[in-house]
Amino acid sequence: MATYILRISCPDEKGLIYRITQILYQRQLNIVGNDEFVDTQRQYFFMRTEFAGACQPAELKAQLQQAMPAANIELDQPRRRAVVVLATSESHCLGDLLLRHEYGELQAQIRAVISNRADLKPLARRFELPFHCVPSEGLSREDHEAALFQVIDGYAPEYLVLAKYMRILTPAFVGHFPYRIVNIHHSFLPAFVGASPYRQAFARGVKIIGATAHFVDEQLDQGPIIAQSVIPVAHTHSASDMAQAGRDVEKVVLARALKLVFEGRIFVSGNRTIIFD
Amino acid sequence: MATYILRISCPDEKGLIYRITQILYQRQLNIVGNDEFVDTQRQYFFMRTEFAGACQPAELKAQLQQAMPAANIELDQPRRRAVVVLATSESHCLGDLLLRHEYGELQAQIRAVISNRADLKPLARRFELPFHCVPSEGLSREDHEAALFQVIDGYAPEYLVLAKYMRILTPAFVGHFPYRIVNIHHSFLPAFVGASPYRQAFARGVKIIGATAHFVDEQLDQGPIIAQSVIPVAHTHSASDMAQAGRDVEKVVLARALKLVFEGRIFVSGNRTIIFD
Amino acid sequence: MATYILRISCPDEKGLIYRITQILYQRQLNIVGNDEFVDTQRQYFFMRTEFAGACQPAELKAQLQQAMPAANIELDQPRRRAVVVLATSESHCLGDLLLRHEYGELQAQIRAVISNRADLKPLARRFELPFHCVPSEGLSREDHEAALFQVIDGYAPEYLVLAKYMRILTPAFVGHFPYRIVNIHHSFLPAFVGASPYRQAFARGVKIIGATAHFVDEQLDQGPIIAQSVIPVAHTHSASDMAQAGRDVEKVVLARALKLVFEGRIFVSGNRTIIFD
Amino acid sequence: MATYILRISCPDEKGLIYRITQILYQRQLNIVGNDEFVDTQRQYFFMRTEFAGACQPAELKAQLQQAMPAANIELDQPRRRAVVVLATSESHCLGDLLLRHEYGELQAQIRAVISNRADLKPLARRFELPFHCVPSEGLSREDHEAALFQVIDGYAPEYLVLAKYMRILTPAFVGHFPYRIVNIHHSFLPAFVGASPYRQAFARGVKIIGATAHFVDEQLDQGPIIAQSVIPVAHTHSASDMAQAGRDVEKVVLARALKLVFEGRIFVSGNRTIIFD
Repeated sequence: MATYILRISCPDEKGLIYRITQILYQRQLNIVGNDEFVDTQRQYFFMRTEFAGACQPAELKAQLQQAMPAANIELDQPRRRAVVVLATSESHCLGDLLLRHEYGELQAQIRAVISNRADLKPLARRFELPFHCVPSEGLSREDHEAALFQVIDGYAPEYLVLAKYMRILTPAFVGHFPYRIVNIHHSFLPAFVGASPYRQAFARGVKIIGATAHFVDEQLDQGPIIAQSVIPVAHTHSASDMAQAGRDVEKVVLARALKLVFEGRIFVSGNRTIIFD
Repeated sequence: MATYILRISCPDEKGLIYRITQILYQRQLNIVGNDEFVDTQRQYFFMRTEFAGACQPAELKAQLQQAMPAANIELDQPRRRAVVVLATSESHCLGDLLLRHEYGELQAQIRAVISNRADLKPLARRFELPFHCVPSEGLSREDHEAALFQVIDGYAPEYLVLAKYMRILTPAFVGHFPYRIVNIHHSFLPAFVGASPYRQAFARGVKIIGATAHFVDEQLDQGPIIAQSVIPVAHTHSASDMAQAGRDVEKVVLARALKLVFEGRIFVSGNRTIIFD
Repeated sequence: MATYILRISCPDEKGLIYRITQILYQRQLNIVGNDEFVDTQRQYFFMRTEFAGACQPAELKAQLQQAMPAANIELDQPRRRAVVVLATSESHCLGDLLLRHEYGELQAQIRAVISNRADLKPLARRFELPFHCVPSEGLSREDHEAALFQVIDGYAPEYLVLAKYMRILTPAFVGHFPYRIVNIHHSFLPAFVGASPYRQAFARGVKIIGATAHFVDEQLDQGPIIAQSVIPVAHTHSASDMAQAGRDVEKVVLARALKLVFEGRIFVSGNRTIIFD
Repeated sequence: MATYILRISCPDEKGLIYRITQILYQRQLNIVGNDEFVDTQRQYFFMRTEFAGACQPAELKAQLQQAMPAANIELDQPRRRAVVVLATSESHCLGDLLLRHEYGELQAQIRAVISNRADLKPLARRFELPFHCVPSEGLSREDHEAALFQVIDGYAPEYLVLAKYMRILTPAFVGHFPYRIVNIHHSFLPAFVGASPYRQAFARGVKIIGATAHFVDEQLDQGPIIAQSVIPVAHTHSASDMAQAGRDVEKVVLARALKLVFEGRIFVSGNRTIIFD
């Protein structure tokens, strides 16, 4: 029997769950999992329902929309998302994604790997994926992004994954993919925004370092946080030891965030994520 | 406006959420939080709903029961639970509970502290709580438990908390308080069941130790697990260093478990807990 | 047999360990534990040695000083440190310290509790400790600190512990106790410096919160970090839920830091701590 | 300047550090890092020293041996270890090792991958490594291990890595590689020894699962533990969800353990590991 994922968000009011589950029940659909949350500050309601049954999606969606005209409604079947990965020269996040992709652990189809450098070409090639080097030297940021966008656009991705892509994207570029770019930042945001977070962490003498996966928005390292994780460090760690120790956190956090994104488990409310896991 | 907590469990079938939320909606009750879970192995449905509004609880409960005759339904307002704490001689868990109790962080009213030893009397007295020493020396297990039960029964507690109570309770005694006794075991169960878990952990050379809060049932250290937590240890730790390091984990895990229990956030399904947090 | 703790720091050079252990060996002292570290950036050597044996401390220290004229040498027996605790109105850190103190788990003698408010007086009194309220209203910062200093000075403490003391101390005041004031900050520094870190954390939508114990220096929340710990949070946590969840982390991190400080396990090198644990 | 790693273990006595560092000082060798530990139960001394300088290793080792006739002394330069990896059909640990190997993060030279199945051949081939399938069907355990040993022996490895190799090795086989076989077990040992640990963990209703890297000895899952790590799980996780979540822990713990082993940071004392990290 087919499985569907229904995602609804709207201003909160009484009876929302009742109205939604009534419609599902009338159609004899079987709710497998159900999560709701009300952001009380914004008085906004979020619901994610997995159900199974014979469903005419367009019709069901129309009925739901009629019952809740103000709601944002998405109805979809679980499926692999079309993805383009951007990276620069570090291999650990990209390599980890390629392995998960190869073994069906990433609910995604990686269509291409793009980099501003050529270092990672052999890695992408090992997994028989298209690799594009879009160099930035000698180009204005706008020209580079135009070239980048052209390559990306050819693959029509739903999501961009920045797997240690070390260039800052302009708001204009980001605007093409609203809440559809996921970045891994190698610090426990909001600590150590910007460049060289491990060097900053070393200088500050912290005892724990971390990594943060977040949606990219117009402001550097300020987008909604999806997942974070940390590991302890000690005075014996140099900045580069920290970077090495941090790699395992980075790749695991990025993969965990992508799983949540690709399974439709995340809503963005203001600058915060609601995660139904 | 009054707040209520509705807890429902029953064999799973289609339309349960719809039927429940319909009744709440018809009464114009406002759902503040809602969690559901289906244990697919046992085909059993669990739901916890917090709602606010003018509610005639007995009537509402009757209506729900009529709509779902097979369901186990509890309807209650948030309230402090009547509790008796049992301890032996270690102070850290008891002391932590007394502090939380004093400052209103434990949704409970500790009515008395009981021990098989006298060591903790001064601590209970500092917080002006009744303390009873019910010694076990020279008594059969049955006679000791009879004496213990008599003292406990005088306080009519809803829950017993074993805050490092170092004697094993008989199934007969436990049977008086089904899923209403919470114990803290000083290991990461099921590792190191039984006595001296830190000594066992040292001997095995583990790199992480833990603590487990669980409901007590007839079998030693086998009841449903509520909460667990761990901390790293190293070869430099002796068994007694581990015990010392473990104390902070024990008291925090016990308090976290009690919060979940007293707020009605736990269902037991088979030997597993479902936790709506 | 008596146990001693020897702490040595000096510019790094070849043969330091050899020269130090030679002197200890010649006196037939038995090294129980030994830790060394070289801060390669600053080319500075740090060593902490625990040894047992018949020792004439003044003479031994003089011999070591002669062998290493540039070194900073401390030789001491393990002992309880004289401490004054400052708090404001939150009870969890103070209460935890009082319990540990009562049961000999804090290598310290708490001589008094001081607050700018009266709320915590009953708690200090439960443990029969002197409590002083030194109010700040209507006083200039300088006058308040003068009053505070006078009370503190009467107890001649080696260390001040800020157990959720919510006022900022002036550099002049801090200068009286160089690296002898330990503060618990309720965030994972350097994230959320300053006031209301939980409110800041909520607004930023982080998925992990933390606490940081650090030495206080002239700059707010900038002193050398001693210990940090974290716990996960979710979108279901309000800022005040985060504050509540954070309390357990705060008190445990503060206690862990104090253990390290009072056992002489910390050296400060630049703005970083070296911890021999 | 050349760097060396000196590892010494011997019955404890006074003056050991002095005698060792004296010899290094006389040769004008510069100690870069130094760790010592005394296992007080077994009265055994362990020391690991990294030093730099012009060193005639054979001569130095002889001099040290003469000064400490009872000591086990190893003197080596940091170098990549010759390794053979055994796996069965799961890709995540092997894939992770191959990536680290490719990018020089594993202080090892993987000479071959061997499996009792053919599933992982394409993965090994992507990284251009020899792959051998040594099937076990229809063979006695002894005959299978004889075939296995023959293939392994051709590569003369220093270490065997069991990267989710799902067959139990006989004591006879293990005896060929004393403390030179590293296994990853997919539970937090000693919980859930043996087969299907995730199924066991699900049945027990634990709230945390883990993974354990350990040296293999004659008894199943009983060898000295090198590294452990954990992640939280919830009632929403099925046994196979736990297995999936556990994979990231397994691969990271295995890699961390191998780093420690290959850098010579581990001593085995009884059934416990001493780790100088």
